[in-house]
Amino acid sequence: MDKFFKAKSIAIIGASRNPNKVGHVILKNLLESHYHGKLYPVNPNTSQLINLKCYPSVLQIKNQVDLAVVSVPASLTLKAVEDCGKKGIKNIVIISAGFSEVGNHELDNKLLSLVKKYKINLIGPNVLGIYDAHSGVDTLFLPRLRLNRPQPGTISFICQSGAVGSASLDLISREGYGFAKFISYGNALSIDESDLLEYLGNDKETKVICMYIEGIKDGKKFIKVASNVTKKKPVIVIKGGTTEAGSKAALSHTSALAGSFEIYKGAFKQSGIILAESLEDLFNYAKVLEKCIKPKGNRVQVITNGGGYGILCADNIEQNNLIPARLSESTVNALKKIFPPLVLVSNPMDLIGDTDTKRYETAIEYCLQDANIDIILVVLLYQTPLITSDIVDMITEFNNRKEKPIVVISTGGEFTEIHKRDMELAGVPCFTFPHQAVKSIKTLCDYYLR
Amino acid sequence: MDKFFKAKSIAIIGASRNPNKVGHVILKNLLESHYHGKLYPVNPNTSQLINLKCYPSVLQIKNQVDLAVVSVPASLTLKAVEDCGKKGIKNIVIISAGFSEVGNHELDNKLLSLVKKYKINLIGPNVLGIYDAHSGVDTLFLPRLRLNRPQPGTISFICQSGAVGSASLDLISREGYGFAKFISYGNALSIDESDLLEYLGNDKETKVICMYIEGIKDGKKFIKVASNVTKKKPVIVIKGGTTEAGSKAALSHTSALAGSFEIYKGAFKQSGIILAESLEDLFNYAKVLEKCIKPKGNRVQVITNGGGYGILCADNIEQNNLIPARLSESTVNALKKIFPPLVLVSNPMDLIGDTDTKRYETAIEYCLQDANIDIILVVLLYQTPLITSDIVDMITEFNNRKEKPIVVISTGGEFTEIHKRDMELAGVPCFTFPHQAVKSIKTLCDYYLR
Repeated sequence: MDKFFKAKSIAIIGASRNPNKVGHVILKNLLESHYHGKLYPVNPNTSQLINLKCYPSVLQIKNQVDLAVVSVPASLTLKAVEDCGKKGIKNIVIISAGFSEVGNHELDNKLLSLVKKYKINLIGPNVLGIYDAHSGVDTLFLPRLRLNRPQPGTISFICQSGAVGSASLDLISREGYGFAKFISYGNALSIDESDLLEYLGNDKETKVICMYIEGIKDGKKFIKVASNVTKKKPVIVIKGGTTEAGSKAALSHTSALAGSFEIYKGAFKQSGIILAESLEDLFNYAKVLEKCIKPKGNRVQVITNGGGYGILCADNIEQNNLIPARLSESTVNALKKIFPPLVLVSNPMDLIGDTDTKRYETAIEYCLQDANIDIILVVLLYQTPLITSDIVDMITEFNNRKEKPIVVISTGGEFTEIHKRDMELAGVPCFTFPHQAVKSIKTLCDYYLR
Repeated sequence: MDKFFKAKSIAIIGASRNPNKVGHVILKNLLESHYHGKLYPVNPNTSQLINLKCYPSVLQIKNQVDLAVVSVPASLTLKAVEDCGKKGIKNIVIISAGFSEVGNHELDNKLLSLVKKYKINLIGPNVLGIYDAHSGVDTLFLPRLRLNRPQPGTISFICQSGAVGSASLDLISREGYGFAKFISYGNALSIDESDLLEYLGNDKETKVICMYIEGIKDGKKFIKVASNVTKKKPVIVIKGGTTEAGSKAALSHTSALAGSFEIYKGAFKQSGIILAESLEDLFNYAKVLEKCIKPKGNRVQVITNGGGYGILCADNIEQNNLIPARLSESTVNALKKIFPPLVLVSNPMDLIGDTDTKRYETAIEYCLQDANIDIILVVLLYQTPLITSDIVDMITEFNNRKEKPIVVISTGGEFTEIHKRDMELAGVPCFTFPHQAVKSIKTLCDYYLR
């Protein structure tokens, strides 16, 4: 399946001069991405498109074509796929809608027999497409102005809904998460969620797999694949259609049988899958699993410059069944000697509002060395004037030592956001609110300390 | 208590030339705010401060002083308050720390007898201060570069923790929420959370009251006051110290006895208070309660341009015990005639990816008129190219009709955020994720449909 994402040549069947047409947008996106392979626009009505030679059909292309993207009307897809088969193109993404999701099961069947006849790997139909942040392969039919593409990284996303996918990619790019591969698999006529999961399980560029699933086609296959993959890397799933109302909606969306959520929950648990309750949780969990090393245990030490935040963290730690770390006696004695008397050397460790960067450095250094602590949760509120910008580098350097997971909470406005983003780009997971950070730490522990 | 927030003259006791001193920052903040009253810096060591005449003590000020802000070391506060008493200043904010929160109960007692002797209204000690976005009264001791001040509006915040307050104000200013009054009440030696709640209950500028509470001093008083206030306007509380670990931390923070959370929960429920589980929920609830009109019922109609988002909303609606609205037959018939066949005229109503602004307009117009619908939840994903920027004005105009609550969900990057912010500034509550919007709608219903 690597030929999809690392395709050296792509035919765009349905490429168009009209900027409102999907085929135009896809071609333009590929030209604007850092994709280095060959592009073959296919359209019988023109011989030139955006400075590229245009072909009446893939059969007229002389060179090998690794991947074909089909964005012609549903009724013309069979001819397009037949041509691809004859040409020997083995990997196809069909963007076009108008198949079983609108009751057109006959078209599905015809398409499926072509796929079998020519041994084609098919993603779709009815999909947003695929995106590889590393190779630049980009078949998403939405313009970059509206849907920003995330920077290269290690989170991949398998998504049954195009809209959930596009909105998420756009959000992810703004949040600065590193991204590997995105696949919107729509009606999953041939390649399904389990095939994709298996592929990403073996993909070296992918460290964390996120999934949005409405319905699973083959439960046994999924559980088998997922059980294997989750031994190698974390898989986080958000399920659409967990209620009666949601299931009904899912049926008319991707014709997915959402089924009983209880059965899904059981299957996910059995397969070692992390279930996210919301899209927000999904991204938060992905962030912490992407950036954090494996913790040795679940004893969390809070270091804070705001007392109230320390309390909220302590509450969240207990609510999430994590263990508040108990500082060793030697750490307590050493820090009490170094810090001013108002500093609370405990858990939470309250460095109080007049803390500077140095006091944080001392606190983190001692906590990294204290064997009673597994995970360090740093509340870093930038509102107090003695916190200097070099705190970003300081915490990043500690994090780069890869001794213990370090997670940071910072709430605030522009000044905060600038620093938070810098720290996150440097590999430290940062959250806005205590409950987000602690829930994510809980997920980290659940995954690694099974 | 209006004299605190609408003070026509303020003495800053402990004003300083040193930019690192709290007394300097407070004076500078007041000069930089839109505050129009008189400022009297008090410092015996200088006669001039930032172009203002400086007084050795408040006793030397000839004119009336409405409010004194005290930021001298704890040991000097008694003298400062005594002077205020003699001068006839009735309203004092003591920023200084070093009282009962560090075990110095004697100082507390002495301060309290002065307060009684001179019939002074005291906020503090050990506080961040107060802020009024309308009058410009601003005694927060953190500089504006670090802690942005929110724009004028109708949300007020009573906060036991300075750090929770400062981080929240900074966040709120970035999010563009309209704000009225902020009070950090710290040790609550004299004026306590109940007094402040009662005051804001009668404050015309305040529409929604948020509170961060670690411990309540007088439970009976609080329940009595809160029960009255919640009849007039919503009160949302986040409680610090809901667990054993959190309570322990609260004790050393503001010497608050956090007490059993179950008892608090009971008291909050009895008083009609909305309990937020996280800071994130607190702000989301405040937003929807500030911006939305009273719903007639809890039947929610979802309008979306992304199928997956419709499903997630449907799931959240059912999970939150809200009712998915059933479109009336006449609405269904009318919209089916107007919309292309692939549009799903149901709940969720899926306008599908090729929707333009006009299709949204038609959908919302019909939903506003349909008597089967109480609340309209619009999923508006800006990734699709046919959504034009004038959709902001369109939805705003519908919202301004004040016929039904309208709530919007938009997930995405820069393009999305710009439009979301514009819409929110125009009075439409917008959320990033479905669960945030639906939980907030649930809170809106719980408050108004008791």
